[in-house]
Amino acid sequence: MRFARIATPTGLRFAVIDGEEGDEKAKIINGHPFAEPDYTGEEFALDEVRLLAPVLPSKIVAIGRNYADHVAEVFKKSADQLPPTLFIKPPTAVVGPGAAIKIPEFAHDVEFEGELAMIVGTPCKNVKRKDWKSVIRGFTIVNDVSSRALQFADGQWARAKGIDTFCPLGPWMETDIDAFDFSDLPIKAHLTHEGVTETKQDSNSNQMIMSPGEIIEFITASFTLLPGDVICTGSPAGTAPMVPGDEIEIDIPGIGKLKNPVARA
Amino acid sequence: MRFARIATPTGLRFAVIDGEEGDEKAKIINGHPFAEPDYTGEEFALDEVRLLAPVLPSKIVAIGRNYADHVAEVFKKSADQLPPTLFIKPPTAVVGPGAAIKIPEFAHDVEFEGELAMIVGTPCKNVKRKDWKSVIRGFTIVNDVSSRALQFADGQWARAKGIDTFCPLGPWMETDIDAFDFSDLPIKAHLTHEGVTETKQDSNSNQMIMSPGEIIEFITASFTLLPGDVICTGSPAGTAPMVPGDEIEIDIPGIGKLKNPVARA
Repeated sequence: MRFARIATPTGLRFAVIDGEEGDEKAKIINGHPFAEPDYTGEEFALDEVRLLAPVLPSKIVAIGRNYADHVAEVFKKSADQLPPTLFIKPPTAVVGPGAAIKIPEFAHDVEFEGELAMIVGTPCKNVKRKDWKSVIRGFTIVNDVSSRALQFADGQWARAKGIDTFCPLGPWMETDIDAFDFSDLPIKAHLTHEGVTETKQDSNSNQMIMSPGEIIEFITASFTLLPGDVICTGSPAGTAPMVPGDEIEIDIPGIGKLKNPVARA
Repeated sequence: MRFARIATPTGLRFAVIDGEEGDEKAKIINGHPFAEPDYTGEEFALDEVRLLAPVLPSKIVAIGRNYADHVAEVFKKSADQLPPTLFIKPPTAVVGPGAAIKIPEFAHDVEFEGELAMIVGTPCKNVKRKDWKSVIRGFTIVNDVSSRALQFADGQWARAKGIDTFCPLGPWMETDIDAFDFSDLPIKAHLTHEGVTETKQDSNSNQMIMSPGEIIEFITASFTLLPGDVICTGSPAGTAPMVPGDEIEIDIPGIGKLKNPVARA
């Protein structure tokens, strides 16, 4: 089931997105998307509403260096030399599908990073890897936008990856976890620059160093996770520069497509 | 004025703390501490209630390497070689005064870091340094607890400094900003180990590399800040290991004292 947060003519609402691609309906629900949907009966065509980020996370915990080929392209080292690490993006960086990624003048070498994201469903700590699905409500897509210049200048990645609008999230939360094989999920990024679209990332979650279960065990050994918290699972190779005027689409077949234009802040 | 968040026999409340040291009263207010207090008339002696962290921040933005002597002791480099940087602690790391700092088995070389913290009062972006006081509601104390072993192993500091309980905050928010000279504020840390108390940090905010105004300008060039967000201004030298059974007190005269016991998670 796909839960979305949407702007409708009557205000912000949660909805279930239903129907064939190109003819989806947003069926409004009462309450929140962490329980069985309680439909109000109100319904919109998807093109009548604006999709927002599916959740407002209390924190965004991200795994860096989780794909060996991406470690090699960015850090020029092997994943043995630089194992996965953990960083945090601030909630104020989140924007929804279609919202502009706004690059300030001082943030150079800004790149997209297409990633599978998990959305936490229940407060949890010290979760064992085999139990990971019991604490995850669903999946979505994140674009872990990063200024490579600030990332290397600062050493810490919080600013380079935490600038307002540097965390596009969406288009919705897919909760049918058992319908997907998370050890074999294609992850693509298509960059449109001066009217020409190129597929820059074309990888698969089977290249992850830490699996979703290992990530949840690793994070919850240290941090309590809360409902709505977002876990970014890392980017595969193929990240590339974006400039104002470009458009970037992250595509995880079956989960959805997350498309955002790039602008100057 | 000192605003506290407290646990009373009738529930969690905000209060104004008033009276001489040792004889303070907690005067309950309606609403929140971001406006003029609206007193309910209810009042408790301070020892009848439990102080909690004064705010629940949506994010905690911290400046690292903001005191040259601390850069030298931890990184063995000069502040010119390693200028101030920015990192994020998760809200789930926050605990209040008196709550135990709980060290998990895998987090070695855990040290305290006594710091002055600012609490944001209004949503803001792109604030100029001269205007910093206009966006700050008050000050408090933070202990930026850090596992040096994880900090160096991970490279990124989010896990080392973000473990549950690794962000003691309090004892209250002091809003009389103009009563303090933030360019000349003593910052001390007293560690009690096996019954013996030693003053480990004994510094002054005059040693800060970036001033409060420069910090606010630096952060808000990238991040929108929201009411209740906490800005940690960096630790001076003298940070030292803590072990279960110890007690650590951060003391900023005029602002307050933040005391926490250390335990095994």
